[in-house]
Amino acid sequence: MKHFILVFSLILSVFASKAQNNDSIMSKKLFDDALNSNIAYRQLFELCSIAPGRLAGTPESEIAIDYMFELMKAMPFDTVYKQPCMVRKWIRGTEEEAWFTSDGNHKTKINIDALGGSVSTSEKGILAPVIVFSSIEDMQKANPASIKGKIVYFNRPMSQNYYMTFRAYGENASMRVYGADEASKFGALAVIVRSLNTATDTFPHTGIMRYKTSELRIPGFAISTFDADALDKAIANNSNLKIFLKCSCVEYAQLQSYNVIGEIKGSEFPNHFITVGGHLDSWYNSPGAHDDGGGCIQSVEVARLFFATGYQPRNTLRVVMFIDEEMEQRGARAYANSAIANDEKHIFALESDRGVTVPTGFSIDAPKNVVDKIESWKSYFEPYGVRVFEKGGSGVDIGFLKQAGVPLAGLVTESQRYFEFHHSANDTWQNVNRREMQLGSAAMALMIYLVDRYGLD
Amino acid sequence: MKHFILVFSLILSVFASKAQNNDSIMSKKLFDDALNSNIAYRQLFELCSIAPGRLAGTPESEIAIDYMFELMKAMPFDTVYKQPCMVRKWIRGTEEEAWFTSDGNHKTKINIDALGGSVSTSEKGILAPVIVFSSIEDMQKANPASIKGKIVYFNRPMSQNYYMTFRAYGENASMRVYGADEASKFGALAVIVRSLNTATDTFPHTGIMRYKTSELRIPGFAISTFDADALDKAIANNSNLKIFLKCSCVEYAQLQSYNVIGEIKGSEFPNHFITVGGHLDSWYNSPGAHDDGGGCIQSVEVARLFFATGYQPRNTLRVVMFIDEEMEQRGARAYANSAIANDEKHIFALESDRGVTVPTGFSIDAPKNVVDKIESWKSYFEPYGVRVFEKGGSGVDIGFLKQAGVPLAGLVTESQRYFEFHHSANDTWQNVNRREMQLGSAAMALMIYLVDRYGLD
Repeated sequence: MKHFILVFSLILSVFASKAQNNDSIMSKKLFDDALNSNIAYRQLFELCSIAPGRLAGTPESEIAIDYMFELMKAMPFDTVYKQPCMVRKWIRGTEEEAWFTSDGNHKTKINIDALGGSVSTSEKGILAPVIVFSSIEDMQKANPASIKGKIVYFNRPMSQNYYMTFRAYGENASMRVYGADEASKFGALAVIVRSLNTATDTFPHTGIMRYKTSELRIPGFAISTFDADALDKAIANNSNLKIFLKCSCVEYAQLQSYNVIGEIKGSEFPNHFITVGGHLDSWYNSPGAHDDGGGCIQSVEVARLFFATGYQPRNTLRVVMFIDEEMEQRGARAYANSAIANDEKHIFALESDRGVTVPTGFSIDAPKNVVDKIESWKSYFEPYGVRVFEKGGSGVDIGFLKQAGVPLAGLVTESQRYFEFHHSANDTWQNVNRREMQLGSAAMALMIYLVDRYGLD
Repeated sequence: MKHFILVFSLILSVFASKAQNNDSIMSKKLFDDALNSNIAYRQLFELCSIAPGRLAGTPESEIAIDYMFELMKAMPFDTVYKQPCMVRKWIRGTEEEAWFTSDGNHKTKINIDALGGSVSTSEKGILAPVIVFSSIEDMQKANPASIKGKIVYFNRPMSQNYYMTFRAYGENASMRVYGADEASKFGALAVIVRSLNTATDTFPHTGIMRYKTSELRIPGFAISTFDADALDKAIANNSNLKIFLKCSCVEYAQLQSYNVIGEIKGSEFPNHFITVGGHLDSWYNSPGAHDDGGGCIQSVEVARLFFATGYQPRNTLRVVMFIDEEMEQRGARAYANSAIANDEKHIFALESDRGVTVPTGFSIDAPKNVVDKIESWKSYFEPYGVRVFEKGGSGVDIGFLKQAGVPLAGLVTESQRYFEFHHSANDTWQNVNRREMQLGSAAMALMIYLVDRYGLD
């Protein structure tokens, strides 16, 4: 018996080391192919060039949907289809103007972009005095009479102290999202928010704003960090300073849009699903290269790497271009609702939506045993600088699968530059580095390969 | 006795945890100050703006030396001085022209830069057929008659397979350094080398070339990767293709130049030295932001951070701007020779010369016990993404201190983008990110603080 166990152990260990060896070979194949290929980088260039500003519901989003559909159709997916969902159609409009004046004559132009979902100003625009706050709480402590009839300017720079810039973003985002809603309760006429940008430059950074409770909706704008500094000085020198704001945003009737989905049928478990994706929509002012055209193209690249290396997944792989992450996440909701309604078994979902800079790890939203299992594979990732496997949030789109108990993960990338691009015209293809993006593509492919082979139980 | 040991251990552990606590506080102070400061980034802008192309021996290098001297003089160093050394004065010249033709009439311009130290072509330039090789070894196997009277074109792209791009650079650099010397032995008239660039773009990347043995020196050039691709196609289509090359490089008499050194006198061990530095010279075609203006400014920033946080080093800190790394390392040799001649005790030297992208670790050239001691401090670095502490090369300049047994280290930074900038006009301040550079500055300051406090024995 002892003998038998010994032989059996030997056989097992030979199998295990052979498997490890195969996995090392696969890891090298995926990274080599990704780093040597120009395909994904060129696709990103095309997407950002033909469909910048592809906010859900816009004509630009339709171009992007068609582009990704045709792109995936031309690849050997088993099936490529569009999954319908209803989306808002909010358009920023063409009339946008902003300046400040202290004498009523001399006007200093400021770089400003309407916040996403903002109501329009009147056709005449708004000319009013300004009052500055560093937060919603700060405003709520002020004398309401001092706010009424004014433009509220939320002017708190992002903290520079954190290594992870997302943390600073998290601290400041509420001013952009709820600032106008809260200020309207005090009779403010409009809100300006200092752009959530770690650098000082002239790009306004927009993003979603929400009207929660207010009857009287007032418009919201983001001002570039450079212009915010200029405005600060002007306000300090002129107590009479007035700001002029004009925009022509329009909210239309909702309409149908789509997620674009490509499937590689699983060879062993065709009814078990692994999802990899990013969101196809981008803000109206942005080519959306890092946020999140890059994440979409990386997800398609996972499939291309499997085709190129001849890897046939055991489970069905779904590559999903989610629509409408920026506004209402209607694509993500539709995808999760469909999965739940059809009682689909999803074994894993992975999203890339933190910018396609160099990958540093994975943030895993799953029970500890799953995190531990993923971390046990880290030796395959570390040679490529992917070192941190931690419990944390995954991605906004796949997050809706959490209700179905699906283990989720997000690709974590180096965040120092990200908020210089995020939600602005500065989020260009030129600011994406091919090698950095492709290290991310390969890391995603390797993660999905390992989950596909070994599961997460 | 047992009692005594227990109490003594308790006292020790209280001291140790207090020390750890102080070190954590210092770490946070250094990173917070660095990440919130704009000073170093502005200094780098100034240096690159007023003294681009500051190759040793040039007027531009004199501007850079004066700039750094005045900059350090304005800081509370105990002493700032210039350390003399003789340097080559090689000037690229103003006459540079390159094109190819297949019919003798139509000329296609190519982006080319003379290699550093190249001889000049004749005033008429060189018009000759081309022969392509992928390496010096490849050329040495060819029929010598096929090379005579031709321009040799070394055309091997950098490998994309490695995570550390320096490894691919190491594989290819010999063609640039020795290609012309070896080709001259076969009667070649000149050499072109595909630029050592991981991307495809129009910037030629120069670098040193050396004449080892040859009597007949022939000129060497770097061609941009984009133009290398175009030239490849043209060669494939036209067996008659000829290339025209012209440059007007001049080697002048050697002259005196300087390292610039700032010292903070050690409070306990004024005769024990810690060196931190980068090299001030940059290639003639380059603003030298990453290579290595950034490393110089980071080194000055280490001192500024100590002044700002009120840290008084126990050992004497020397901030050194080495001159002439790119050509002959005369500044580094002078510094090491002076240290040895004066029997100075150097306890540590640190260099930043791998680009000022986000720091990932330290490469340590010292015995294992030193590497282990440095690694024991890693918990202070990891929260800022600095995770890899490995034995390896340090920096070209401080490398000359190795003969004196000094423990050396180099800051390791993320290398995906570096060779898109290196030795080219693309190495601009705009391609340096403030936060990435400042994470490096703080990591360097923290390392020196820990060595200063605890030593490396």
